Amino acid sequence: MRPDLYASRLALRARTADARTEMARAIAAAESPACEHVFTRTLFAEAHREAAAADTDTVLAGLSFSAKDLFDVAGQPTPAGSIVLAHAPAAPVDATAVSRLRAAGGALIGRTNMSEFAFSGVGVNPHHGTPVNPCDPITPRIPGGSSSGAAVSVATGAAFIGLGSDTGGSIRIPAALNGIVGFKSTARWVPADGALPLSTTLDTVCAMTRSVRDAIIAHEVLAARRVTRSTLPLAGYRLAVVKDLFFDAIDTPVAHAFESTVSTLRAAGARIEEIALPALAELPAINATGGFSAPEAYAWHRLLLERSGAGYDPRVAQRILKGAAMKAHEYIDLIQARAAWIARIEAAIEGFDAVLSPTVPITAPTIASVASGAERDAEFFRVNALLLRNPSVVNMLDGCAISIPCQTHGELPVGLMLWHAALHDDTVLAIAEQAEAALQQ
Amino acid sequence: MRPDLYASRLALRARTADARTEMARAIAAAESPACEHVFTRTLFAEAHREAAAADTDTVLAGLSFSAKDLFDVAGQPTPAGSIVLAHAPAAPVDATAVSRLRAAGGALIGRTNMSEFAFSGVGVNPHHGTPVNPCDPITPRIPGGSSSGAAVSVATGAAFIGLGSDTGGSIRIPAALNGIVGFKSTARWVPADGALPLSTTLDTVCAMTRSVRDAIIAHEVLAARRVTRSTLPLAGYRLAVVKDLFFDAIDTPVAHAFESTVSTLRAAGARIEEIALPALAELPAINATGGFSAPEAYAWHRLLLERSGAGYDPRVAQRILKGAAMKAHEYIDLIQARAAWIARIEAAIEGFDAVLSPTVPITAPTIASVASGAERDAEFFRVNALLLRNPSVVNMLDGCAISIPCQTHGELPVGLMLWHAALHDDTVLAIAEQAEAALQQ
Repeated sequence: MRPDLYASRLALRARTADARTEMARAIAAAESPACEHVFTRTLFAEAHREAAAADTDTVLAGLSFSAKDLFDVAGQPTPAGSIVLAHAPAAPVDATAVSRLRAAGGALIGRTNMSEFAFSGVGVNPHHGTPVNPCDPITPRIPGGSSSGAAVSVATGAAFIGLGSDTGGSIRIPAALNGIVGFKSTARWVPADGALPLSTTLDTVCAMTRSVRDAIIAHEVLAARRVTRSTLPLAGYRLAVVKDLFFDAIDTPVAHAFESTVSTLRAAGARIEEIALPALAELPAINATGGFSAPEAYAWHRLLLERSGAGYDPRVAQRILKGAAMKAHEYIDLIQARAAWIARIEAAIEGFDAVLSPTVPITAPTIASVASGAERDAEFFRVNALLLRNPSVVNMLDGCAISIPCQTHGELPVGLMLWHAALHDDTVLAIAEQAEAALQQ
Repeated sequence: MRPDLYASRLALRARTADARTEMARAIAAAESPACEHVFTRTLFAEAHREAAAADTDTVLAGLSFSAKDLFDVAGQPTPAGSIVLAHAPAAPVDATAVSRLRAAGGALIGRTNMSEFAFSGVGVNPHHGTPVNPCDPITPRIPGGSSSGAAVSVATGAAFIGLGSDTGGSIRIPAALNGIVGFKSTARWVPADGALPLSTTLDTVCAMTRSVRDAIIAHEVLAARRVTRSTLPLAGYRLAVVKDLFFDAIDTPVAHAFESTVSTLRAAGARIEEIALPALAELPAINATGGFSAPEAYAWHRLLLERSGAGYDPRVAQRILKGAAMKAHEYIDLIQARAAWIARIEAAIEGFDAVLSPTVPITAPTIASVASGAERDAEFFRVNALLLRNPSVVNMLDGCAISIPCQTHGELPVGLMLWHAALHDDTVLAIAEQAEAALQQ
């Protein structure tokens, strides 16, 4: 793994590295074939200028970050991976998340490719091409989505922080499939203004990084808060593994990596118990009338679909249009059913500091298997549902979750998800930092 | 006006009065003909026992309060003015608002009559009869609603605090029509659990009292917070009168009382400016697809209507059923349009400490003109819309408002509404206390 932001910042401050060279290296990575289809727009000249002018005593020290194509950047349209908004009016100001990263000394290297309008977990994009997962040098595999370019920008060295969003796993899925870290904070921590919405209820503005300590840095900047650090050893936490749902239809390599990870963590002192979470089985019934994303996306897209529907990815348009039929009272029932369900899950995991699950039950499928074309729609939607299933539990919970790599060396990446209810962010981050250390030994 | 809670509590502490005698007087009022149809259930024996056992050093000192029929009281069903829920299962525990009033030393004298399921501002009830407004000893006039019995219980001396709820004016309308004080706090201050909902977005749990100082006492108990008292004179505040909307179709006596009130307040030093608030004209368009109450009430009532619709007040069932057709995306648009509208109104009134409006544009019509019967439906819905129009602006604003009496002595009651945006409660209360004093001189 390349050096993380934390290490690079230390080197800059010790003057064993300098910001221009760091940025030149990031730009070289962004220009390399590994970053084909990763950016919808690059900002190399600006980023170079920002890095050269940066104060290395700032939090981000002039280092490179990327921003998913759905964030407002002053002076640019915000197409969110579409072509129908390619010539939309320019945003007057940066999204708050972008302006916070800049104010902390970050240099924006480019806008990253994504599933159109963030509406899928696979990461293929028929307009801008699909970023290739760097984990397999032979067979092109999906990056996962929707923050597909963000993940590859971080994995290849083009960015230290890949700013993205997570509505049902859009940060954690690509983090898991690309072997990097993705932290979905409790949604309310980070303002979503200037981010084109998918689901105003479930959207979380958050980021991917190369390490847990970098996830903490990024979160502190994005949320404008300090994470409370813990000095507890791994043995000081009570951890749970939930057998329901998360392991259904799991790939053997993922199952093995997860088992081996649990063994490693236990050997490092972790106390891990298996628990049942029967309330997970209620989710299909709760979402039966349509869920949050479809009607909320339809409310946003309705007029644009009428005007420019033919320019949408048909797989995306199809899912948004499903939101047209939902009734207001069904949506109101959904809000209330979710609140009651959250209370049941919170009560069930109350005695635990974090729950461990596979982030997604599969390793990255090939791009060929799910590429655009109606003949692959069935496989696309099967894979999409499988990728979203585990991480979206945490969005419904209004909780927080981090995905860290846990595959055996040389295997395709597998993500370990550590999660809990809303506002447990600091504990989840502390445990993840220790788990990461134990897994790297 | 009868002594308020503040004065009665002083007398109790000075031992010039005692709690049993006070309660006997309240029960006598509740049993008098003036309180016909005011209670759906009386709790005289319990209230007498509670008063006798009460500590006069508590905030409410064993004095009488009433609770609108939609609040849970442990061991009783919560019919909310209906007959279809008359034999519903008993509530296991008190609503938080009820338990806070009890914990503060209040004695619950009874459950008060209301517009069925709180769905009208008129206050007629075809099942339990309509409480008669005590302001006119000759002609029976409406009490206003939906907290109809609550208002009459306070006006007649049966209760010092009438606990109710306000979704579009249900506290302030009856306060204005009965010549008492009604304070709708910012909704988030008081928990709504254990209150049968009308609109989960707009409902506010709050109360009527005989004075502004009593409104402060009741609010402090219900919200479990202390109001910050101000020592500013009336001249220290900047007040606004909004000409748009609030004066449309106004009755002459209301217009005169309002003008005379403004003169009195100016004479007492108040600085009052006329301002325009053109955003008020947007409300019909924002609510064109159905508003909040109908779909939210429909979500709650759907199954009950299917089972027992014939037992509903047809005027109420008809309005709830209007919520069935609304689409989820229309509801989502409504939420977002409301948020943008709130921002515009807040910006427009930002430089002012409170806005003054007539609470409602009419004095209390006769019960005969709007009593049950399809032949009077048109007049009922006309009066209902007129009563709700002014106060409901503040619910849409998520704001706070108090109605205080401002009619000339001997005239039918007229309410002066002082209002502002969310969380301006303490300033609005401070100004109201001074305005009340100026108007009583």
